[in-house]
Amino acid sequence: MAIITLTTDLGYKDFYQAALKGSILNTLPTVNIIDITHEIEAFNISKAAFLLKNSFYYFPKETVHLIGIDTVYSAANKYLAVKYRDHYFVGSDNGIFSLIFEETPQEVVEINILQDLKFLHFPLADIFVKAACHLAAGGLLKDIGERTFEIEQKMNFHPVIEKNLIKGSVIFIDSFENVVTNITKDLFNKVQAGRKFTLHFKRSESISQLSWHYDEVPEGEKLCLFGISDHLEIAINKGKASGLLGLKANDTILIDFH
Amino acid sequence: MAIITLTTDLGYKDFYQAALKGSILNTLPTVNIIDITHEIEAFNISKAAFLLKNSFYYFPKETVHLIGIDTVYSAANKYLAVKYRDHYFVGSDNGIFSLIFEETPQEVVEINILQDLKFLHFPLADIFVKAACHLAAGGLLKDIGERTFEIEQKMNFHPVIEKNLIKGSVIFIDSFENVVTNITKDLFNKVQAGRKFTLHFKRSESISQLSWHYDEVPEGEKLCLFGISDHLEIAINKGKASGLLGLKANDTILIDFH
Amino acid sequence: MAIITLTTDLGYKDFYQAALKGSILNTLPTVNIIDITHEIEAFNISKAAFLLKNSFYYFPKETVHLIGIDTVYSAANKYLAVKYRDHYFVGSDNGIFSLIFEETPQEVVEINILQDLKFLHFPLADIFVKAACHLAAGGLLKDIGERTFEIEQKMNFHPVIEKNLIKGSVIFIDSFENVVTNITKDLFNKVQAGRKFTLHFKRSESISQLSWHYDEVPEGEKLCLFGISDHLEIAINKGKASGLLGLKANDTILIDFH
Repeated sequence: MAIITLTTDLGYKDFYQAALKGSILNTLPTVNIIDITHEIEAFNISKAAFLLKNSFYYFPKETVHLIGIDTVYSAANKYLAVKYRDHYFVGSDNGIFSLIFEETPQEVVEINILQDLKFLHFPLADIFVKAACHLAAGGLLKDIGERTFEIEQKMNFHPVIEKNLIKGSVIFIDSFENVVTNITKDLFNKVQAGRKFTLHFKRSESISQLSWHYDEVPEGEKLCLFGISDHLEIAINKGKASGLLGLKANDTILIDFH
Repeated sequence: MAIITLTTDLGYKDFYQAALKGSILNTLPTVNIIDITHEIEAFNISKAAFLLKNSFYYFPKETVHLIGIDTVYSAANKYLAVKYRDHYFVGSDNGIFSLIFEETPQEVVEINILQDLKFLHFPLADIFVKAACHLAAGGLLKDIGERTFEIEQKMNFHPVIEKNLIKGSVIFIDSFENVVTNITKDLFNKVQAGRKFTLHFKRSESISQLSWHYDEVPEGEKLCLFGISDHLEIAINKGKASGLLGLKANDTILIDFH
Repeated sequence: MAIITLTTDLGYKDFYQAALKGSILNTLPTVNIIDITHEIEAFNISKAAFLLKNSFYYFPKETVHLIGIDTVYSAANKYLAVKYRDHYFVGSDNGIFSLIFEETPQEVVEINILQDLKFLHFPLADIFVKAACHLAAGGLLKDIGERTFEIEQKMNFHPVIEKNLIKGSVIFIDSFENVVTNITKDLFNKVQAGRKFTLHFKRSESISQLSWHYDEVPEGEKLCLFGISDHLEIAINKGKASGLLGLKANDTILIDFH
């Protein structure tokens, strides 16, 4: 059964996500609809990109990922359908694709199945659903749009690297209050090159050991590890790191190699 | 695959909505269950009616919409199954049907498949599920109840209309904080009859232009438009209208035509 | 279609529950995934056990219930797959099973399909998913683990019983603010043995009548009844008992028979 995942800011309290699902089932009755989340804060493209980037590859290839963030109609908006690592993505060309993809996607089309734009108050339930169901049913990208090589670029702040130093930042606090940074495992390994390290944050906190698992330190103790997302994470064994350590999004993290 | 949608006040934190879904799958293993929402505030019939009225028609015809609001057993309660615009609705006869339907439904039966009422602590997982699954499996209304022509009536406050004036009110704040009024597009068009208008709210705010899309005014500016629900909406481009304009449910909205 | 239910503390705001569902669909594309809830508070085993204990039997037999609470890898953790009342359960051996089961389960295996534990950052999406999909596809318990007769024991506080008295406590406030106690219907009936009773709570509140339904007392009045969960519940007809009566988890409830 074909799968369409949904990542939106529509919430669970209004009728919008239900209308979206109804539209999909009306177009393709046999599809399996899975929520990534509908609880992205309105217009928070970075957060949506982070969630999708870290979850899409758990799904089977050929899954269609519909991104419903910032989709209200705007004359300036372009809508894209993209093939990337054998998954499909449908969304607004608002920069989110550049935050999800780590390499050039296999194929990108600008969707041209729009008709009377003026009356379009719910693009999600119209253009996006048509495009997503077309792809979920095995249709080709070229039948719903014109090939394009331009994608709106948006950059997350990347860590700054010097010989003995990575200067990164907090990008995400998860609901366990684990603190996720923008420092990936690849980057860490490359700069570390076998050396010891001290991770500094806030005024005077530091960690000098990489853990594999949360329980390698006593309960209530801080640690750092590469978690589910392959990003360096600061956590507390059975505790809420963000609150207890006073760390929040955009705070600076320094790693000193020696 | 047959579809049953759920609109309830059961929440996502208890086991009630799961018990409901389990009961459905136990009765009809092949059905596709879609949540409209489980986050209606307890006993808020108007809200449930508004959500369902604005989302049911996105689903395929023959979809069964189970309404689980105010369903605890009460000697005085009647339970109805209704066919309306080729969709099915199952719920308590507590007035909600009169708030959803704009015309006389195709067929109404009072469900008579109840057995031992005294022991009935979870009608949702018993009567409602039996009725909904019967209909989703293609069964007939007449096999689960007695035809009836009485439906409990409940009225939302309708706008008051004078020659040059519509006096309406706010019925709903969505999770983007858009302000939805009880003034429908049909009513607006009929009273406007080509004239100019000024919409007044709070002490001194006004809007004199109807927008098609949120982005027709600069970011942070207020506007009014007919949104996804075909009700007049007061919004702010990329902003939270309810909070910023101080508008909340039941506030008065005046439209002056000139 | 086989069913896997999910009871986790992963929340709906991160990508974790989506990654879990993706993994399941990647392993067994035809399975029907149903959320019991993802909103258990982190590490709250008692709450998860209570929800699952009161909802699993609504689902068809052979359903697989995946319990994702306290699943981060720990050298000391064992993972179990269990057959109980013809349902399957997969989870950590952290005591939760002893809180769900009322009698000895039909079969228990300690899962031994783990490979390189050191790199295991998301056991849910690895071991648990493999085991659950194996069972949902009709596989045998003995093919994924070694039979065991040891289950970690955890005890909820049971009511204390004297000749004329049950001393129990509040275990759960549901989202309607009904107050659920640890006094089951069976226990109550056995101790009552036809006598009258007075239920005491807080300093001076009491109830001397068992209701069948919420509406047997006037709106706003307190009552007690055996609700959906077969536990004695203190409620207010159309009101929020917990807030209005000042009752919270672990508060003492006394029933005096006379």
